[in-house]
Amino acid sequence: MSFSTFIGLFLGVAIVLVAMSMGSSILIFINIPGLMIVIGGTIAATMIRYSYHEAMHAVAMSFRILMPSNDIKDKNELIDLTEDLLRTSRSKGFLALENMEINHEFYRRGIRMMVDGYSKDLIRQTLLEENKLLVERAETSAGVFASIGGAAPAFGMIGTLVGLIQMLSNLSDPASIGPAMAVAMLTTLYGAMIANLFALPMADKITTWGQEESLRQLMIVDALEAISQGQNPNIMRDMLSPYLETKPLVDEA
Amino acid sequence: MSFSTFIGLFLGVAIVLVAMSMGSSILIFINIPGLMIVIGGTIAATMIRYSYHEAMHAVAMSFRILMPSNDIKDKNELIDLTEDLLRTSRSKGFLALENMEINHEFYRRGIRMMVDGYSKDLIRQTLLEENKLLVERAETSAGVFASIGGAAPAFGMIGTLVGLIQMLSNLSDPASIGPAMAVAMLTTLYGAMIANLFALPMADKITTWGQEESLRQLMIVDALEAISQGQNPNIMRDMLSPYLETKPLVDEA
Amino acid sequence: MSFSTFIGLFLGVAIVLVAMSMGSSILIFINIPGLMIVIGGTIAATMIRYSYHEAMHAVAMSFRILMPSNDIKDKNELIDLTEDLLRTSRSKGFLALENMEINHEFYRRGIRMMVDGYSKDLIRQTLLEENKLLVERAETSAGVFASIGGAAPAFGMIGTLVGLIQMLSNLSDPASIGPAMAVAMLTTLYGAMIANLFALPMADKITTWGQEESLRQLMIVDALEAISQGQNPNIMRDMLSPYLETKPLVDEA
Amino acid sequence: MSFSTFIGLFLGVAIVLVAMSMGSSILIFINIPGLMIVIGGTIAATMIRYSYHEAMHAVAMSFRILMPSNDIKDKNELIDLTEDLLRTSRSKGFLALENMEINHEFYRRGIRMMVDGYSKDLIRQTLLEENKLLVERAETSAGVFASIGGAAPAFGMIGTLVGLIQMLSNLSDPASIGPAMAVAMLTTLYGAMIANLFALPMADKITTWGQEESLRQLMIVDALEAISQGQNPNIMRDMLSPYLETKPLVDEA
Amino acid sequence: MSFSTFIGLFLGVAIVLVAMSMGSSILIFINIPGLMIVIGGTIAATMIRYSYHEAMHAVAMSFRILMPSNDIKDKNELIDLTEDLLRTSRSKGFLALENMEINHEFYRRGIRMMVDGYSKDLIRQTLLEENKLLVERAETSAGVFASIGGAAPAFGMIGTLVGLIQMLSNLSDPASIGPAMAVAMLTTLYGAMIANLFALPMADKITTWGQEESLRQLMIVDALEAISQGQNPNIMRDMLSPYLETKPLVDEA
Repeated sequence: MSFSTFIGLFLGVAIVLVAMSMGSSILIFINIPGLMIVIGGTIAATMIRYSYHEAMHAVAMSFRILMPSNDIKDKNELIDLTEDLLRTSRSKGFLALENMEINHEFYRRGIRMMVDGYSKDLIRQTLLEENKLLVERAETSAGVFASIGGAAPAFGMIGTLVGLIQMLSNLSDPASIGPAMAVAMLTTLYGAMIANLFALPMADKITTWGQEESLRQLMIVDALEAISQGQNPNIMRDMLSPYLETKPLVDEA
Repeated sequence: MSFSTFIGLFLGVAIVLVAMSMGSSILIFINIPGLMIVIGGTIAATMIRYSYHEAMHAVAMSFRILMPSNDIKDKNELIDLTEDLLRTSRSKGFLALENMEINHEFYRRGIRMMVDGYSKDLIRQTLLEENKLLVERAETSAGVFASIGGAAPAFGMIGTLVGLIQMLSNLSDPASIGPAMAVAMLTTLYGAMIANLFALPMADKITTWGQEESLRQLMIVDALEAISQGQNPNIMRDMLSPYLETKPLVDEA
Repeated sequence: MSFSTFIGLFLGVAIVLVAMSMGSSILIFINIPGLMIVIGGTIAATMIRYSYHEAMHAVAMSFRILMPSNDIKDKNELIDLTEDLLRTSRSKGFLALENMEINHEFYRRGIRMMVDGYSKDLIRQTLLEENKLLVERAETSAGVFASIGGAAPAFGMIGTLVGLIQMLSNLSDPASIGPAMAVAMLTTLYGAMIANLFALPMADKITTWGQEESLRQLMIVDALEAISQGQNPNIMRDMLSPYLETKPLVDEA
Repeated sequence: MSFSTFIGLFLGVAIVLVAMSMGSSILIFINIPGLMIVIGGTIAATMIRYSYHEAMHAVAMSFRILMPSNDIKDKNELIDLTEDLLRTSRSKGFLALENMEINHEFYRRGIRMMVDGYSKDLIRQTLLEENKLLVERAETSAGVFASIGGAAPAFGMIGTLVGLIQMLSNLSDPASIGPAMAVAMLTTLYGAMIANLFALPMADKITTWGQEESLRQLMIVDALEAISQGQNPNIMRDMLSPYLETKPLVDEA
Repeated sequence: MSFSTFIGLFLGVAIVLVAMSMGSSILIFINIPGLMIVIGGTIAATMIRYSYHEAMHAVAMSFRILMPSNDIKDKNELIDLTEDLLRTSRSKGFLALENMEINHEFYRRGIRMMVDGYSKDLIRQTLLEENKLLVERAETSAGVFASIGGAAPAFGMIGTLVGLIQMLSNLSDPASIGPAMAVAMLTTLYGAMIANLFALPMADKITTWGQEESLRQLMIVDALEAISQGQNPNIMRDMLSPYLETKPLVDEA
């Protein structure tokens, strides 16, 4: 889970809801046909562009980013974990790895294959294929959210045009003009909120997250290789150090 | 046929029509001169940019994407089909391929040429040329739809300006202002709908579809080569595997 | 002449004029100061960006695209013509080429130089320089039209702002508000029409046309080389075939 | 500190404040819920895109650009300083460098490491890593400000839509329409000011500053190498000259 | 001086002024606070992005483009001049070049250095450095004008929002609404005029001019080399010919 992403989503919606509830009932901001036109139209435009499977992968990836998870995020922790695994496998053999706690699903899967006796090359190849799949899916998923972020304001505008045309065609009751315009403008608001509070930031987030997770996975593939070779821990650290971000200088050495 | 594309087009139009029919007669959304200015102007701007042939290819390609077809989409199925063809040709000779069911037009054409005795090189060259043509046409067709998606809102705005200027020039009857503005705004609505419900998503779809279909065709060209060489099925699978998308890991091996 | 371009320009203007004349006199859409501000401002902004010569080349190129011409467009016809020329020159000598009908100005010029006894190398070099000039001019001309397409809507907005400010500064006569706003909005309409009916599509067309014409010229340069060498017609066809577009398969061979 | 950046920020805010206070009380431009929706929404959208750490680095970097500092900016001064350091170290040894005044924090840190006896290679590697970190952080920080510059106007529009819908839903008191619209438009104003007076120019500035500071740091790394080698000052000048910008000709030599 | 640029700037301003003076006093288009907010805000945003020196270079470069100058523009004239200089130096020695009229400042400076006895290599190096500086400054200056062209409309909108909010907050006198809105819209007009009549076209012009002038300077550097070597004039023409634009064919040779 990306904590700041979760907070950001919650904060954005909360702020807009508070602003809506100040000075009027929040009920005036609910309009089922308007929601239908914006959400339905956005889904329709996205279905033309992407297949059902691609859209589902995008939803799954956004859940994976937003849901709580205790997967290790820090590459230094992954190196420390690798050292533990390495020392265990060197002293007690590969099978002892089965009972160790590994807080990263991709890493866990690699260790399981190792314990099950898969060849080193097959493990590497299988995991690299999964990594390639992650990168492809992250790109497609970011594209799905970008498509939503582009379509939602467009359908917001279409909804507002439909509402304004209905209102202007029937001006018999002047008192109804204001509320009718308010309802017409709701779809523009819906479209802007979907795009700016959700879809466009998520598209950017998935792109960044995919790049970072892919780097962690490639590092784990090399870590598994080191474990299967029974490398010296220091050599393993040297092997993995290029994956680490550059670190700031120790202050005033 | 791309099923989700078809559903997306239908769903988008249906949702907007339902929204239009709620709260007013749908008839107020029909305005022949407005439709004429948006559709005619969009066609005119597209005719300046593209020749008649290029526009017709774009229409044909959109039909090819939207119409039902039992062409095989899955590359794994194509490999399975190739294995069937390979085993048949090895046991019964090339001519036996003539009666086999091949659910992919491009593949069928290649097999027909093989049965008709064309040389291996001529088949390869002819099919690669057709593949190159597909790629070029997909690019041009996507360009035609992108041009429509850009021109339609512009002519929607031009139509609205024409309508507003006519209305403002003659304000003698205040009661007619509302309906006149409604009519003027219709062209903006038409332009937004054409662009967002149809043209822009189709441009993206054709681009993606062209890339995928081109990859399938290149794979078929190699498959035909393997068949004409009477390759071992396993070697054929190795030859074609780079065309396969990466596959997810078998869950929890 | 590009026929569909000509039709597109005519159709677009006709449709907008018809829409204008429906429901009101077309005279209300004519406003000389408004036209002056949009056309004059667009010319001014283009003159800052481009020299007088560059602008004139752009006009000349647009005429060359729009005017009737019997220059050969089809590359296959150019190859057939080359075969005729080749056979004539092989049987009757170069001088016999002088009287042949050659429906392509660039080709005609090359043949004239050949008849006049210029060296093969000089002809090639001179024609390649002219080809390079065509490419440069097409790029600059497309830039001029793109600049017009960007400036026209901007000056349309400037004109509308000027009109609205004049109207708002003097609201003494409420009855004049409508017509004054109509006049103010005319410049926005002019700007949108110039950009979308003319300048932006022409910029795209010139880019495409320049690429195609350049390819035809390069093919003619090679054709002239084949003629001056007295090549065998079949070898000439092989030499020129890479310039041909890929062709569709003969249906169901 | 970048002096013109500081002046620019101050000047922009001052001019808008003066314009606000002319013709009305400046108090009408203050609206706490409106500020909350724009600033809160912008923060929310940025938190989805970037982690807390990345956002903090962006703030730190903007302070580093805006705060007074006597770090040397001119590369020629850095070369003069290097010559002083070089002569001192050649005559009195490395330890004498400890007491010299070095007006550039990165340079000071390098000299301190040298005085402390770190190896030449370790110093180089450590400083190059810090330089790489600076480049990465400058890119991310510019991205954070660009994200703010994109989100602020969007949330300004969302705030205005919320305000307009509330106003239109309750038109009972015509006298309140004007002030209510004024309040609704405030959020658009806030969004435009945040983006154009602050976020977008800062994003550009950080990009440029990061490139320049990185070049200075790379030059200092080479300068430190020259000092540790006890190079001849003229050779050192030759070594560093590629980092200098090209200089104008001495007028009328 | 670029003549068409000068005419374009003058024409654009004149046309807008004429349009303003038709139908109303031009005085209603003058609003000092509005001008202050647009010009001041634009300057502020540009000062954040660029240093004072960079902005001054941009102003200097725009003057250099707009001011009358008898610097030679035509590369063929530069070759003719080079031939004169070459013949003079071959017959009367380098010192005789001192009294020749050289209508290009960069060329004059190179000849002066030659007359003063600078070495060939130093002249070449010095002039190439100045050329590199020109290219860098032209890029930065174009960036400054592009920044102005982006900031001016933004501050025009900010000014209009400030004006509208002030007006809407105080609707006590209905008669003042029109003029107040007119004043509010003036800043949008100012921003659009600064961007479209001046800043954006100048940014494009400086880019183009910088590329052309840089090419002329590189040609002059080679010309000076030829003079200092006392080359044969024909060989000099061959050396410089690649700098010439391609020329159109002599009509109907």
